Amino acid sequence: MVSRIKDIDERAFIAQLASVFGRGKDELKVPAGDDDCAVLEFGGEYLVVTTDMLHQRTDFPDTMTPWQIGWMAAAVNFSDIAAMGGQPLGLLAAVGYPQNMSLEDSREIARGMRDCAEFCETSVIGGDVDSHEELTITGTALGRVSKEELLTRKGAKPGDLVCVTGTLGAAGAALKAYLKNMDIDSDFMKPLLEPVPRIAEGRMLAKSGAVTSAMDTSDGLALSLYDLASVNEVGFVLRKELLPVDRRVFEIASSKQEALELALYSGGDFELLVTIPRKSFKALQTESYLTVVGETVDIDADINLIGKDKTNFAITRKGYLHIGASEQI
Amino acid sequence: MVSRIKDIDERAFIAQLASVFGRGKDELKVPAGDDDCAVLEFGGEYLVVTTDMLHQRTDFPDTMTPWQIGWMAAAVNFSDIAAMGGQPLGLLAAVGYPQNMSLEDSREIARGMRDCAEFCETSVIGGDVDSHEELTITGTALGRVSKEELLTRKGAKPGDLVCVTGTLGAAGAALKAYLKNMDIDSDFMKPLLEPVPRIAEGRMLAKSGAVTSAMDTSDGLALSLYDLASVNEVGFVLRKELLPVDRRVFEIASSKQEALELALYSGGDFELLVTIPRKSFKALQTESYLTVVGETVDIDADINLIGKDKTNFAITRKGYLHIGASEQI
Repeated sequence: MVSRIKDIDERAFIAQLASVFGRGKDELKVPAGDDDCAVLEFGGEYLVVTTDMLHQRTDFPDTMTPWQIGWMAAAVNFSDIAAMGGQPLGLLAAVGYPQNMSLEDSREIARGMRDCAEFCETSVIGGDVDSHEELTITGTALGRVSKEELLTRKGAKPGDLVCVTGTLGAAGAALKAYLKNMDIDSDFMKPLLEPVPRIAEGRMLAKSGAVTSAMDTSDGLALSLYDLASVNEVGFVLRKELLPVDRRVFEIASSKQEALELALYSGGDFELLVTIPRKSFKALQTESYLTVVGETVDIDADINLIGKDKTNFAITRKGYLHIGASEQI
Repeated sequence: MVSRIKDIDERAFIAQLASVFGRGKDELKVPAGDDDCAVLEFGGEYLVVTTDMLHQRTDFPDTMTPWQIGWMAAAVNFSDIAAMGGQPLGLLAAVGYPQNMSLEDSREIARGMRDCAEFCETSVIGGDVDSHEELTITGTALGRVSKEELLTRKGAKPGDLVCVTGTLGAAGAALKAYLKNMDIDSDFMKPLLEPVPRIAEGRMLAKSGAVTSAMDTSDGLALSLYDLASVNEVGFVLRKELLPVDRRVFEIASSKQEALELALYSGGDFELLVTIPRKSFKALQTESYLTVVGETVDIDADINLIGKDKTNFAITRKGYLHIGASEQI
């Protein structure tokens, strides 16, 4: 019997908590646990809001500079705003500092947050300071989006194209290089240490009116596909030759199979995964940031990857989980 | 030279960070570090938002139940919403759970948050789950308030009456009893472990239009007076016989002097401290939740307490600080 935090699957745990919290008041359009952000109706439009806790041991590798730590703590939250099609309104940051941290490092963390917020056309609007044995940062990002433009996880239908922004696996490749102590330069590490929130892309997708479902890929493409499949009761077929695997993955992977695994299962990419009906896709097909990777199918077809030679294998439900029995690669 | 977190005063540290973050965009009406909440203009009214990080070692005494931990994590945030006159819109909670925590305890924490949110006429709308060596909870509360009704720290003028809600020192008395292992019942501990956010009082004060400045007393009455004095460039004279010292303080204090110290300097009360011009006070004088404790004076008069016999002594700047050289009593 599952009775402790360490034994439960993260998604199942969130579902348990969400059932305690309930549906909320009328103004709450998307409740806890259902999407990348909570959605509140406010002043005729939607307010989207999200929070993320990061801490030293799990989230800040030794090579990370204080500036990168601040950037990261902001970026993971703005990525959730991007996934809802939101225009950022601000970031709050509650930081638990180790007593011995230098003030200069604490200011560098603040500058990293500020710079990421400015990249997202907003600012750090508040926060809390605390002392903590382990450096711990909880960011909260707010955004606004008109009712017509809100992107959510729910809405994908069989036949919809599956698309991703950017490339796949760059953060996973960097993590592998770091863990294996490989000789790489700092640019190689950037996708892992300085993820770029896809705010501009999220806004363009939201304005297009073409997107039926959206989320970010922070826990890996495979887990995100499973999340969308579960919410929408659909399956997915991805085409191997269409995957925009990052060039860094090929530099670091010891086999084609490993490259594919990094692209599918490693976390930290913070790209957007969206579904778009075929007939609506025309309006977006010239957009360089977007790559079609496959198609939404019936739920009975599960989640599969098809090769050029028609080989077909199942994409499994693994990736980055913060709680419980994670199968991180 | 101050160069590490442990050596800096919390208020000075917040000022340093605020100068990194800057003034923000036009829609940000009250920037980081200036008040109990950040204030954003949105849809013709104000959105107020605040975040607070709590963790096991500092904030959750052993006697606290998981339900109380959840309640507390919600209450400290709603108290900030109350201080701005806000109507709560929701709570987000990012929780870092120790791996060995039982699922039942984690659900009890969630129930505590939910019950506090419901007391404040709202709900838990989102969050994040993480695993952490030390139980760590960062709450974020959102509220709304019309432009005319917003309460802020800025506005107190010499001559304004100084008022507090509820009583003073109950949480401090409970903390003393707990630390000294005194024989007390669970009701005695409630003010410390289950603080009540003064949302209803904050709303009434906001609607009255009479309040010139407001904040909560979470770090103690004295520190809050110093904060208001600094923002408004004023001093305060409090009258000893007017202080609504909680009955529990007299049960626990070993002298009248200690009772006074608990009322002035202990944190955890989460009452509201407000200033109200004498001529506007009439509208509020029948309100049972509000006690006049003194008067706003010229900045040169500092912050003093006057006895019935005209004895006069300085209220010093001490109380609960989360960072650096705190002089907690």
